Amino acid sequence: MQEVFDPKAVVLIGVSRQTGVGAYNGLEMLQRFGYRGAVYVVHPHAGEILGQKVYQRLADIPEVPDLAVIAVGRDRVLPVAEECFAKGIRWLIIITQGFADADREGKRLQEALVTAARHCQARIIGPNTMGVMNAFNGFTTAFVDLPRSPDPAPVSLVAQSGALQVGSESFLGPLGKAVDIGNAADLGFVEVLEYLEQDPQTRIIALHIEGLIQGRRFLETADRINRSKPVVIFKTGVSASGAQAALSHTGSMVGEDQIFSAAVARAGLSRVHSALDLQDTLQAFRKLPLLRGRRIGIATPSGALGIIALDALSREDLVSGPLPENIRNIVQPQGPYWHILHNPVDLWPIGMLTGDYLKLAQQTLSGFLADPNIDGIICMLPALSSPLHSNIIASPAFFADLHLERFNKPLVVSLYGDGREVVRRNLDPVPGVAGYFSVEQAAHALGQLYRRYQALKRPTESWRLVAKTNPPAPTEPLLLGQAALEFLAAYQIPVVSGRLTHTPEEAAAAAASSGYPVVLKIIAPEWLHKSDRGGVILNLMTEEAVRAGFERLQYLSALPFSGPVGILVQKQLSGRELLLGIKADSTFGPVIVAGYGGVHTELWGDVVKTLAPVNLAQAREMLASLRSYPLLTGYRGAPPAAIDELAQTLVHLSNLAVAHPTLRELDINPLMATPEGCWAVDARLVWRQN
Amino acid sequence: MQEVFDPKAVVLIGVSRQTGVGAYNGLEMLQRFGYRGAVYVVHPHAGEILGQKVYQRLADIPEVPDLAVIAVGRDRVLPVAEECFAKGIRWLIIITQGFADADREGKRLQEALVTAARHCQARIIGPNTMGVMNAFNGFTTAFVDLPRSPDPAPVSLVAQSGALQVGSESFLGPLGKAVDIGNAADLGFVEVLEYLEQDPQTRIIALHIEGLIQGRRFLETADRINRSKPVVIFKTGVSASGAQAALSHTGSMVGEDQIFSAAVARAGLSRVHSALDLQDTLQAFRKLPLLRGRRIGIATPSGALGIIALDALSREDLVSGPLPENIRNIVQPQGPYWHILHNPVDLWPIGMLTGDYLKLAQQTLSGFLADPNIDGIICMLPALSSPLHSNIIASPAFFADLHLERFNKPLVVSLYGDGREVVRRNLDPVPGVAGYFSVEQAAHALGQLYRRYQALKRPTESWRLVAKTNPPAPTEPLLLGQAALEFLAAYQIPVVSGRLTHTPEEAAAAAASSGYPVVLKIIAPEWLHKSDRGGVILNLMTEEAVRAGFERLQYLSALPFSGPVGILVQKQLSGRELLLGIKADSTFGPVIVAGYGGVHTELWGDVVKTLAPVNLAQAREMLASLRSYPLLTGYRGAPPAAIDELAQTLVHLSNLAVAHPTLRELDINPLMATPEGCWAVDARLVWRQN
Repeated sequence: MQEVFDPKAVVLIGVSRQTGVGAYNGLEMLQRFGYRGAVYVVHPHAGEILGQKVYQRLADIPEVPDLAVIAVGRDRVLPVAEECFAKGIRWLIIITQGFADADREGKRLQEALVTAARHCQARIIGPNTMGVMNAFNGFTTAFVDLPRSPDPAPVSLVAQSGALQVGSESFLGPLGKAVDIGNAADLGFVEVLEYLEQDPQTRIIALHIEGLIQGRRFLETADRINRSKPVVIFKTGVSASGAQAALSHTGSMVGEDQIFSAAVARAGLSRVHSALDLQDTLQAFRKLPLLRGRRIGIATPSGALGIIALDALSREDLVSGPLPENIRNIVQPQGPYWHILHNPVDLWPIGMLTGDYLKLAQQTLSGFLADPNIDGIICMLPALSSPLHSNIIASPAFFADLHLERFNKPLVVSLYGDGREVVRRNLDPVPGVAGYFSVEQAAHALGQLYRRYQALKRPTESWRLVAKTNPPAPTEPLLLGQAALEFLAAYQIPVVSGRLTHTPEEAAAAAASSGYPVVLKIIAPEWLHKSDRGGVILNLMTEEAVRAGFERLQYLSALPFSGPVGILVQKQLSGRELLLGIKADSTFGPVIVAGYGGVHTELWGDVVKTLAPVNLAQAREMLASLRSYPLLTGYRGAPPAAIDELAQTLVHLSNLAVAHPTLRELDINPLMATPEGCWAVDARLVWRQN
Repeated sequence: MQEVFDPKAVVLIGVSRQTGVGAYNGLEMLQRFGYRGAVYVVHPHAGEILGQKVYQRLADIPEVPDLAVIAVGRDRVLPVAEECFAKGIRWLIIITQGFADADREGKRLQEALVTAARHCQARIIGPNTMGVMNAFNGFTTAFVDLPRSPDPAPVSLVAQSGALQVGSESFLGPLGKAVDIGNAADLGFVEVLEYLEQDPQTRIIALHIEGLIQGRRFLETADRINRSKPVVIFKTGVSASGAQAALSHTGSMVGEDQIFSAAVARAGLSRVHSALDLQDTLQAFRKLPLLRGRRIGIATPSGALGIIALDALSREDLVSGPLPENIRNIVQPQGPYWHILHNPVDLWPIGMLTGDYLKLAQQTLSGFLADPNIDGIICMLPALSSPLHSNIIASPAFFADLHLERFNKPLVVSLYGDGREVVRRNLDPVPGVAGYFSVEQAAHALGQLYRRYQALKRPTESWRLVAKTNPPAPTEPLLLGQAALEFLAAYQIPVVSGRLTHTPEEAAAAAASSGYPVVLKIIAPEWLHKSDRGGVILNLMTEEAVRAGFERLQYLSALPFSGPVGILVQKQLSGRELLLGIKADSTFGPVIVAGYGGVHTELWGDVVKTLAPVNLAQAREMLASLRSYPLLTGYRGAPPAAIDELAQTLVHLSNLAVAHPTLRELDINPLMATPEGCWAVDARLVWRQN
């Protein structure tokens, strides 16, 4: 899609004759932004707009432009697009709103557009878009007058809105390229990512995502690119009301946020949760090396700010490192005898004595940089505009003299006071240092750099769903009880031995063959929450008890027993109850679930989800991330459960998930974990009906 | 302490002869800040400093100043202070560092200073302080050249550092008064709060707190003041490492943050967690009325920003209100037929048609303001510096014409784009509207306004500890088992019936009298975690079983049974296990604790803490805030526990806590809750030893 960011020739269709204030004239914006390529304008009335010759018909244009930008009323978009295809134009940006973002008719029009484009092997960006911006060559399709940076940043944005590029100072900081994919009727995140992967002007990629389709392809692409170019994700529509609004804004289907989060984390992508976070993180990736350990050196002009820094670092799971010897030897002796240095290094009392605060700061930063036990640095710097304090305004030379290029450590500076803008300008050109206006933002930048460092250590994984077997789905939409357990057993998921019985005699025989104690359960579609309703009897030790129990449950159920309806007789196990499951996510497909099981499952909500399939290591990680994990490893003297078998069972479960794309939901509750192994005791499968 | 903020005469002791860049000369700063009162300077060498006559001795000064500002070396501070007291000076600000913030000798010097001051009924601010700043009259004791606002804000800061006032643009926004209480050796938060309560120039109070003493007096004062002047708390040292650093910074003892949070919330004070949050919250309280309901009107130029706003509002527990009829009637008809308005109101498609975005925005905001089903408003506004977009730059008149004074609703504006500073200046003078530079900050401001509105509805409460009885503490440092239960019973806390026995015969008799089933427990100081170690036998149904159980436990314990050591025979109850307790907090004194009990207590950490005493309503709130509360109200068909008895037991427990200030710790685990009532089954009390 180089033609879109750097067309040799572009045609604008739907340019207004109005120009100037409030006209939102795309041609005017393009001229002001400084584009030097060939621009054609089509308009029903001949003449000129802004000195530009106007063609009455597209056919009259003497060449085939790379790109058409269409901003006519929604009802005229399809015929105009067809003219473009006829002319041989292969890229369309459709600015016009009123498609899937509006009503049913809009949705129909959008589908017709895509069909027409596919027919001609043409691609569409939008509709409902501001299109693209390229600060390197001055090309833009925005109807807003964007400020153009003389020194574009290697940061590219892919958004589902034009608002972020319009307010990029507020949302992102400096930007080199941007594309608003709008309703993403045709071109989506994956295609743009593939372009940016190859683009030498892009070093960092920011994604504003309302909803995704093709979740697996997205993850595969983003994971691959992220290993060389950081991919930063600002996902919106994470609240229930926000998700609802995303559906009407760009027609985006928003899946469950917990699953999106798990997927993004597993792919090692960086996630941000606010516009400020987005700017701060992009600045960190643009200017700083990664943070390769948790130990931070802290330089501060005030004990109070040192404490604020410790609080903020602790939220990022970072710690203050040991005080370097060279700081103790060089900086401390210059201070008052009673001032013992720690990390945070409080420089003010020393600065008051020596009169040269910045020299001390530089000695301290150099000490941190040189020390192998410090991984990164945060420095609080006062920046006051008063001429009396010009001596503590850190100059460009202050930062250059640190020779940050010799060390592979990030330095974040938290500037405060009315001269902070000045000092930030002083450090902006120096690589290896980034300036923030609050301690918390500076600490968060370090956190993002550390999380990325950790994420890049992950082994590569395959995101495509490849089933090892391809069995047919059952014909029944619902599988319960013994039938469900037998289905699981076929995938090597251990299940408790049991038999569905229809008479007291059968029940007694089943108990004798499984061994006592046993448990009896009503199995029927009407009895899903059987334990809450007394439909389960535990701990039966004798044949008489089994017969009596059978009769009690038969009476309670008030059902005729036959076929899949009856009383299940199971060997009773004692151990920890877990919940295991599968869920089909609208974005990412099969997801597996593990959590604290039994009747209190919903109370604690101690559940972890990840995309299927998982390997053994990932299955172990899932289990270990549960809050109730200690119950499995030998809590307060209890024997540990068989973790290896549990993890292996999760792997088998995930293979089942992959093999059955039409499985909508599977619950194993409980899976009983003992020191000897684990066994599914009850299960339920729901299949998608077409 | 009016003398401190507005002294008729002040004497500076320890002013350097050096002036200008890097001199940190307090006299110079005072002159530049514009103070017009009488200033005396004492210096061992006569002459002039900055045109000011120098007195060689304090005694030579022709009047008694209200205030002395001392900045001599730490070893000379005490003699200088004593000279001041001799002269009759009653207020001292001690700038000098190196006291409790440094070493043991510093701590001793600080104590000597306080003793000397008390002796003369004089008061000390500091040491280790920047002192005070008063932008109204130009008085400051700072050694830093502070910018002085020509129009001081009614916001006063009490801090444990000078850094916040030095960088107030970064930390607080506009400020009228500030005091750094430094080590708070003498004057603390309470005294300053009492002054600010009476101060007509103070409307909002910001507190930067590292550590508190006299927690109850502080809460009493802050709660009272907060009902008329918002008290906003920025607590630092909340992480373990931060708390450790606070101890060495100002010698502040930092209690447990969960308890500090509970205390602040119960007193209805506003809390912030970062410097940005502090500024944003102060701006909200300075400029906006409270938010009196959860329903927000949202006006946006972009669907994407509307979604971001919904996400942000949802984090603040706010919701989008219904679309007002007058917006549907007035705004919607101006747009394209396919554009159906919702809340968030997306104005862009309509603005492109009408060409007057700001008029639509104003109609929309007016619609929200007038509608009784909307409680507050968030408005995203583009602000672009391009001359082509001057038509969408909201002018001062835009905001004035909303007549916000007629409505009692907060309007927060999220500005984006390179013209945002301009628009913020335009709205700054208009009351009822506040401008933020991100959607999340604007939404958070609304959240703070709503939380304050809710907090002000709390009934007043008494924060002083008044014991209803004043019984002696037990002479034993540790009370366990039956003795502990008997102690609880004296405070009307229901306890399970049981008897400590020393022989199998005694045990059998005890079981017969309590009724079966019973439980046996080893009681001995070495057997605190008895259930983990097999020291408990449950569910004994017969005399033989009791005798056999007794012998097994006796063998297991390997202890001679006599006095408080033996086997406890208790009636066995079945129900929900809770944990109840008392803890002495270093800042706030007795705290009561309630949580999910039994062996999984530590796993789930489902525990709530609040200051003792509590009334019935507060006890009910405590229980209801537990994650495991549903277990008490009838979880999945189980019968509900006796909530009234539980709450009443918490009230009794809190009375016990108040009656015994030397109680260090009390645990009831478990307290068994059944539908009929609740009973303490096991308890442990630890007393402070003096």
